[in-house]
Amino acid sequence: MTLIDGKAVSAQIKEEIAAEVAEILKNGGKRPHLAAILVGHDGGSETYVASKIKACEICGFKSTLIRFEADVTEEKLLDAVRQLNADADVDGFIVQLPLPKHISEQKVIETIDYRKDVDGFHPINVGRMAIGLPCYISATPNGILELLKRYNIETSGKKCVVLGRSNIVGKPMAQLMMQKRVPGDATVTVCHSHSKNIKEECLSADIIIAALGQPNFVTADMVKEGAVIIDVGTTRVPDPTKKSGFHLNGDVKFDEVAPKCSFITPVPGGVGPMTIASLLNNTLLAGKKEIYK
Amino acid sequence: MTLIDGKAVSAQIKEEIAAEVAEILKNGGKRPHLAAILVGHDGGSETYVASKIKACEICGFKSTLIRFEADVTEEKLLDAVRQLNADADVDGFIVQLPLPKHISEQKVIETIDYRKDVDGFHPINVGRMAIGLPCYISATPNGILELLKRYNIETSGKKCVVLGRSNIVGKPMAQLMMQKRVPGDATVTVCHSHSKNIKEECLSADIIIAALGQPNFVTADMVKEGAVIIDVGTTRVPDPTKKSGFHLNGDVKFDEVAPKCSFITPVPGGVGPMTIASLLNNTLLAGKKEIYK
Repeated sequence: MTLIDGKAVSAQIKEEIAAEVAEILKNGGKRPHLAAILVGHDGGSETYVASKIKACEICGFKSTLIRFEADVTEEKLLDAVRQLNADADVDGFIVQLPLPKHISEQKVIETIDYRKDVDGFHPINVGRMAIGLPCYISATPNGILELLKRYNIETSGKKCVVLGRSNIVGKPMAQLMMQKRVPGDATVTVCHSHSKNIKEECLSADIIIAALGQPNFVTADMVKEGAVIIDVGTTRVPDPTKKSGFHLNGDVKFDEVAPKCSFITPVPGGVGPMTIASLLNNTLLAGKKEIYK
Repeated sequence: MTLIDGKAVSAQIKEEIAAEVAEILKNGGKRPHLAAILVGHDGGSETYVASKIKACEICGFKSTLIRFEADVTEEKLLDAVRQLNADADVDGFIVQLPLPKHISEQKVIETIDYRKDVDGFHPINVGRMAIGLPCYISATPNGILELLKRYNIETSGKKCVVLGRSNIVGKPMAQLMMQKRVPGDATVTVCHSHSKNIKEECLSADIIIAALGQPNFVTADMVKEGAVIIDVGTTRVPDPTKKSGFHLNGDVKFDEVAPKCSFITPVPGGVGPMTIASLLNNTLLAGKKEIYK
């Protein structure tokens, strides 16, 4: 069994990006610039945005953080988005989700210029991904593809079961795994809350991508010997032994499943660290204008 | 076994649309207007476009046909698209595919204003469909959903195997069948040229949607008793007994598969006739500005 070390891969990708940025600057090119809009003071969002900014520093990117209080009006937020769209120095930007309930996330996402949408949530990027055209692929699916690639995990012709059909993980993951390319070319099954026979589907899977947000959902009796397990779950489970008061729990019952696997991602330290690497990579692509002119 | 009569359903939908158009006109509303661009003189394309125009007449739509010779430049074609985008009287329009090789179909599709893209091929419509937002759904998947709906075929929690991963049928069909709605909520598996175990996947399917373009691919030994079969295949097979010199052959070996099914679509007369009904329905939605303002 090989433990997939997302933390190490993520660090390596950041090093590669930093080296490329250094090369760009040496040749007189422009420093990639990522901006982030943060609304309110949600603890999780604060942590994520801080990590993104820190990662920008590591990679030699310029970063800008724009903050609003939680009572900002939708119109004011949309104005900030439009300003970033128009700012030629900003290569890509994100609006950290979730947003307060009085603001339409979808409206905000669709106001972002798709050419700067490094989160890959704009319908144009989602659509281009489905069609198989160059685009910004959102962070988690992109990170999983990268792990599969760097661990040389065979996907062509394999049965891949995706658990969960969220717009940010399950659905895009399914679409990516069925594309005509590598990683891809898999026979893909998507299971969700309405599915019967989830156990049978999982038992026939060569690759399981678990993104349900249900701690310990995947148990040993659901997994075929030699399967590859990608665990996207990161549920915060109260834990008095931790300083933070919680620990992150994956969708997979790791201790009993791991011995049966050929490859498995731990939680934490598997898929999680890859998301920021994906965002940085999209920003680098944006800076180089590789996807869109 | 119930034979799904796409021809009858399509005729019924056209009647419903015609009645709604009459109502709109009675209330002083605008007659829906579909425009079509046809390049060259391909026999199939000529036939399709002619049927679409005839269907417009039946439904009380205004229709406009714009023709170009096969040697039209890409720029000239794009100009025509831009003119239709700007023409306030045109509610929706299509560019009949395929186009001559010197013209980029993708560029043409992306030049169409997504608000008038009643074929549903623009990345914005594809992306919105994947996310589950209101949009123009392309003709064939939309037609299949409509058949499932009108025949009250249960899809929630059912296993649906989609054979084929084309951008115009397989992929969107898979996305639609897994959405949180009815028809939808199915456990979806997509099989294609790289898949192993296609037979096993099909044997466990409650619903099979065959869109491979391989005549007679689905045989009786691949189908579970009581399954629902939707046959999207329309391969032209040479046939000297026919006036046209060919007959249309589905992806399903109908004679041996039909007796095992609860529902099955014939070829021709199943999914085929539904595509034009879907296009008309999208045009009606465009005329009413129901999806986009």
